[in-house]
Amino acid sequence: MSREKFESDSASNHALFTDLYELTMMQGYLETGHNPQVTFSLFFRTLPQNRGYIVAAGLAQVVEYLETLTFADEELDYLAGLEGPAFSEEFLSYLDGFEFTGDVRAVPEGTVVFPNEPLVEVTAPILEAQLFETFLINQLSFQSLVATKAARMRDTIREHGDGQSLVDFGSRRAHGTDAGLKAARAAYVGGFDGTSNVAAGRAFDLPVFGTMAHSWVQSFETERESFEAFVSVYGEDSVLLVDTYDTVEGAKTAMAVADELDVDIAGVRLDSGDLVSLSKQVAKIVGDSGIVVSSSVDEYAIAEFLTSEGVATGFGPGTALVTSSDAPTLDTVYKLVAVERDGELRPSMKLSTGKVTYPGQKSLRRVERDGQFERDVLGIRGEERLPGEEQLVEVFDAGSLVYSLPSLEASRDRRADQLQKLPGEVRAIRDPAEYRVGISDGLQSMTERIRDELTEQYGAN
Amino acid sequence: MSREKFESDSASNHALFTDLYELTMMQGYLETGHNPQVTFSLFFRTLPQNRGYIVAAGLAQVVEYLETLTFADEELDYLAGLEGPAFSEEFLSYLDGFEFTGDVRAVPEGTVVFPNEPLVEVTAPILEAQLFETFLINQLSFQSLVATKAARMRDTIREHGDGQSLVDFGSRRAHGTDAGLKAARAAYVGGFDGTSNVAAGRAFDLPVFGTMAHSWVQSFETERESFEAFVSVYGEDSVLLVDTYDTVEGAKTAMAVADELDVDIAGVRLDSGDLVSLSKQVAKIVGDSGIVVSSSVDEYAIAEFLTSEGVATGFGPGTALVTSSDAPTLDTVYKLVAVERDGELRPSMKLSTGKVTYPGQKSLRRVERDGQFERDVLGIRGEERLPGEEQLVEVFDAGSLVYSLPSLEASRDRRADQLQKLPGEVRAIRDPAEYRVGISDGLQSMTERIRDELTEQYGAN
Repeated sequence: MSREKFESDSASNHALFTDLYELTMMQGYLETGHNPQVTFSLFFRTLPQNRGYIVAAGLAQVVEYLETLTFADEELDYLAGLEGPAFSEEFLSYLDGFEFTGDVRAVPEGTVVFPNEPLVEVTAPILEAQLFETFLINQLSFQSLVATKAARMRDTIREHGDGQSLVDFGSRRAHGTDAGLKAARAAYVGGFDGTSNVAAGRAFDLPVFGTMAHSWVQSFETERESFEAFVSVYGEDSVLLVDTYDTVEGAKTAMAVADELDVDIAGVRLDSGDLVSLSKQVAKIVGDSGIVVSSSVDEYAIAEFLTSEGVATGFGPGTALVTSSDAPTLDTVYKLVAVERDGELRPSMKLSTGKVTYPGQKSLRRVERDGQFERDVLGIRGEERLPGEEQLVEVFDAGSLVYSLPSLEASRDRRADQLQKLPGEVRAIRDPAEYRVGISDGLQSMTERIRDELTEQYGAN
Repeated sequence: MSREKFESDSASNHALFTDLYELTMMQGYLETGHNPQVTFSLFFRTLPQNRGYIVAAGLAQVVEYLETLTFADEELDYLAGLEGPAFSEEFLSYLDGFEFTGDVRAVPEGTVVFPNEPLVEVTAPILEAQLFETFLINQLSFQSLVATKAARMRDTIREHGDGQSLVDFGSRRAHGTDAGLKAARAAYVGGFDGTSNVAAGRAFDLPVFGTMAHSWVQSFETERESFEAFVSVYGEDSVLLVDTYDTVEGAKTAMAVADELDVDIAGVRLDSGDLVSLSKQVAKIVGDSGIVVSSSVDEYAIAEFLTSEGVATGFGPGTALVTSSDAPTLDTVYKLVAVERDGELRPSMKLSTGKVTYPGQKSLRRVERDGQFERDVLGIRGEERLPGEEQLVEVFDAGSLVYSLPSLEASRDRRADQLQKLPGEVRAIRDPAEYRVGISDGLQSMTERIRDELTEQYGAN
């Protein structure tokens, strides 16, 4: 009930979150009476540096968008008033009654995906399907980048046989508010335990966590007084930040205060300095209390920290997580792969130099052997004798949602299961091995045939 | 009128866009009756790689946030139901009546800033000022990164004596919807001419532009037919994408269609391949029509393109702009620099290893000589005999807005003016020279005195 209000707010105005050319093309399709059924495929062409896989995330937001998309009167008024290519009454009236009537297939959130594999396929009249490009790429790319970054941290901890908690502390460094919210969500899919962001906790029903900031400590006359005040309010929930002045002395003061007030505090937090060395010293002081490490944490730092036998019960990654800082972009595209000709949906592709797109609707198969993923096969939808298990599920059928969206927990479990089946060398956080994605004979020969036809028609490129 | 609705939607729920610890600290301040007047300073510690300056942007969003911040009933209900450190009735009732009563000083948008210089200073009871940390850092860091990236592209074009248009094509690759909107805004401050994002155009009254996508071309039987259809609808506004099959042939087809329909088309767009070479070939074909270049455009690519005498009338940067991809993060912090003791606001700092914060409220002076910025001086607010011109302006006084927010045009002009006065070697896009920021004698000796006091109290760090 209260949740609905917020979600409808947050979803507001997404109809106009599109590039102007989508709308001008739509008007062009309408005006020229050219509205074939088409299929758009959303995929990325290459893996970012040091990435052996991407964890798909963000499908729930795509579903919400497609289900709720409408143009408000104020939005239509804005379009009517735009200078440049004018929008006609007829087109604005079309938008006023806009409704998605198409089909969508997608890989479930938490699935690992590789270059050229469709995350989403939209089949609909081009006048509808064209509109979605900007929003779909925007939501799926970012959440997938963050879910991947998070999965790499969780996997690094698992590889070390450890089970430290991971909490997203990054909202302040995210690119805007939507990124702060969606990063928290995607990190959870990727294996985090929660977030510090209260709005994200509310929007997605995520566990929220927090400690204290340097400002708390500084605002009191002495560090000790500040700890006493905090523990007097929060008791056993207290996690005291001990590095405002001197980390080791701060840890001693924290435990002295815990003793004095006879409270078994939850732990301390370290946010600066040589964390390996400091954490070992602090561990001797705080005993069974927790140690949260939160300065410049990413999968590389976690690996080094654990290898060097630093002591922590939890990590609070921030900037690196929410911006996927070493790989802040994914080259996701939304490409026309099939178009209706003479009443039939036929495969289509473009020839632009260096950018090949496999034509047609796809089948994405994953082949397991001995409980491990061995390879994927990208084939033609409906192609016979493809090996492995289909990864694409039906999400919308003729505009109706036919997919039961999994809970975030279920997507998180799916990610854990998929990662466990992925060979270690593909999961490596540096210079990962390339996972094998084969192209089926059918898709290969269809691609070559269409390329030859186009080359004959337009010349070699 | 219609604008207001959208803005209030977009501003909704920002009260909870905060880290849980801000709220738990606030409740702690309330419960212990510890609510001193404090000053928080928002600044970054270091410049990202290849950055000689940062263009400040996002203040308008901070003002809107502080002016409209309220906790809705549903938000308070959510907080009341949270597990972990419970929120009291007293605290929730405080939030219910929350109102900002403090002072804010800031540098106007479009101002160039350097490490340790305050972008914003908030002076208020700590129970208020604590809340804002997450949102303020989030909005100001991202917009400043993008305004800077944009300014570097505009400046590169200016250095070459050219005047190509720059339009943000990046929404799909931005980190979420808020980033897409705010990147368009910040790019405009940085010297862009507009955006392709319709929602951003509406939200910030920005010029919106668009061309056509490969899907338009592919959806027709032939490229020629697709161009004919587009020009029949959009006439002289048409910018035809010519690289779907073969760029040079595509350009010829575009001009043949323009001839056939007797339309002086606006231009063509190139989106792949060797853009320098292709643009020279295409220029011979399209004559006076425009050439828009939109593949992997950033300041480095623009510099190389112009140095190699590529031909373009406009650029459409995307990914690199909206993610500031070579420098996706800024290490912005919001630090307590002064706290009330015995009724007086006194400078404060922390000692954490390697992270020095200059204490106290600041004066930020910029010294000009012969129309060029020579150096900045960071001093104590009210310190006598500081040279140069004060950059910090009063924004809020006792909770009231006392600053007339400049138009985006004015902020854009300010950025242009500031950049022109900044020495060329500081503006260099690679390995820029360090701009001189001096610390006043007063601030230097105050910093040392407080450090000595703290070191005596807490030990050397």
